[in-house]
Amino acid sequence: MKKVVIALGGNALGDTAIEQQKLVEETSKSIVDLIEAGNQVIIAHGNGPQVGMINLGLNYAYEKDIIKGEMPFPECGAMSEGYIGFHLQNAIDNELRKRKINRDVACVITQVLVDKNDEAFKKPTKPIGAFYSKEVAEKISNEKKWTFVEDAGRGYRRVVASPKPIDVIEKNIISNLVENNCIVIAVGGGGIPVIDNEGILVGVPAVIDKDLASAKLAELVNADTLIILTAVDRVCINFGKENQEELSHMTIKEAEKLIEDKQFSPGSMLPKVLACMSFAKTGKVAIIASLKNAKDALLGNSGTKITI
Amino acid sequence: MKKVVIALGGNALGDTAIEQQKLVEETSKSIVDLIEAGNQVIIAHGNGPQVGMINLGLNYAYEKDIIKGEMPFPECGAMSEGYIGFHLQNAIDNELRKRKINRDVACVITQVLVDKNDEAFKKPTKPIGAFYSKEVAEKISNEKKWTFVEDAGRGYRRVVASPKPIDVIEKNIISNLVENNCIVIAVGGGGIPVIDNEGILVGVPAVIDKDLASAKLAELVNADTLIILTAVDRVCINFGKENQEELSHMTIKEAEKLIEDKQFSPGSMLPKVLACMSFAKTGKVAIIASLKNAKDALLGNSGTKITI
Repeated sequence: MKKVVIALGGNALGDTAIEQQKLVEETSKSIVDLIEAGNQVIIAHGNGPQVGMINLGLNYAYEKDIIKGEMPFPECGAMSEGYIGFHLQNAIDNELRKRKINRDVACVITQVLVDKNDEAFKKPTKPIGAFYSKEVAEKISNEKKWTFVEDAGRGYRRVVASPKPIDVIEKNIISNLVENNCIVIAVGGGGIPVIDNEGILVGVPAVIDKDLASAKLAELVNADTLIILTAVDRVCINFGKENQEELSHMTIKEAEKLIEDKQFSPGSMLPKVLACMSFAKTGKVAIIASLKNAKDALLGNSGTKITI
Repeated sequence: MKKVVIALGGNALGDTAIEQQKLVEETSKSIVDLIEAGNQVIIAHGNGPQVGMINLGLNYAYEKDIIKGEMPFPECGAMSEGYIGFHLQNAIDNELRKRKINRDVACVITQVLVDKNDEAFKKPTKPIGAFYSKEVAEKISNEKKWTFVEDAGRGYRRVVASPKPIDVIEKNIISNLVENNCIVIAVGGGGIPVIDNEGILVGVPAVIDKDLASAKLAELVNADTLIILTAVDRVCINFGKENQEELSHMTIKEAEKLIEDKQFSPGSMLPKVLACMSFAKTGKVAIIASLKNAKDALLGNSGTKITI
């Protein structure tokens, strides 16, 4: 039985609870196909739009005196893990029931350790929350020591760091459950970022790349395969051009060369390729594929394989 | 090693994230005392104020067009499990680290099965969300088939049912983790209520009493002891009167008699006593105690024991 970490994109989860539930039901069919094919599955997922919605909504209600207390960003991440995890766990469980497969599905709230000296903390890049005028942004920035950037002419937004994942605090729990034949949902949204402050784990406002977190988890639980799902069947070179070409395989060296040639878009394919390279260094197989062809990709008939 | 299910009250978690984090840090010391004393611990908790805050805040932001899509109540419950669970897991983990105890702490998102024909669905009683004028409440009630009640002169509020827990969907996962020496946080807020709709589990807007859900979990994981924590050291009869008397022990029969005599307040001590009675029926011990005396209560030196 192969141990597979699947990374789902947060953008593929829709904008509302009702949309998310429908999309997750569809996704679960493909995931249960992988389970039925004999794979031991761990599911990681993004949370960009969802944690943004929770953070924006609750802090708006707080500013309007509807609820008490500001909601810090790590706590919003924890909420998004519960929210998305519940839908995934419920939908996968229901799909298993339909197919009369008797397996348990667990969603584990996950903290991911980052280095408090990570260079990323010096230059935050990930925009979160509401848009503010320059004046209000400056006022909040002085009060709370938040960093703001101007966002595409729409106003000023807070930015937080995107540090690298260095450990998954709940790794033993996840391994344990997998060994006991459970399907596990973990490192939602890249995990809740925590730093080690003299032996104490403290949540920090940051966004960990979900693909890198998935790769780290795959490495820590000794997975055979990491599969990062995206909208396209295969990684392409010369993407969108006349001479566009699908790749079925890249070595780490080939991938490095293609990155130098700026073949992969920084906001989309590049982080996926980098995450796959980091996992492939362990000698195992990383794959970038589409959800609908995930099963074929594991059999080598679709997707782009990244190996050492 | 004794397997103990501890039920913490949601009202003891404060009103904001910052308050909650501080309170949970204190609570964790008492919980780790129990762990250090050799008990295998599962922690259940309430979520009344927290799920109310999430539901109110997000749906206010939705009504004001700040976020897309209404947030259904079961999803708010899932968020509250992530939110409170993260604080508990982080704080217990940190307290274990301080004492150099090497144990893993897991927060498991939990669905709790209720009967779709539960009588409670016919007369919803639990108020949730915002206060509305009579006119607006009637309009929403017609549109969404929600039930509203007038709440203490402050306006009209939606009410949802409080059905009985009949199964914990993730019981095997929780047992599994406990057997592997993990500390587990589960059935937060009484669990996310789901009904079985022709073999498919569907989330429903309802509130499961967290003490009853804790008792059900304790029964299902074959716990030795259920301990329900409250603000007082022991259950009292003639509470607040001159002849007030602390009880150190009740049999189920004695408890039934005291309930008949209306000794326990319906909104506070009664559900705790009922939950203890339901667990005590298994032949095991249920205890009502204060957090600070929880360790003594397990040794029989504080709290009120309820037995068969």
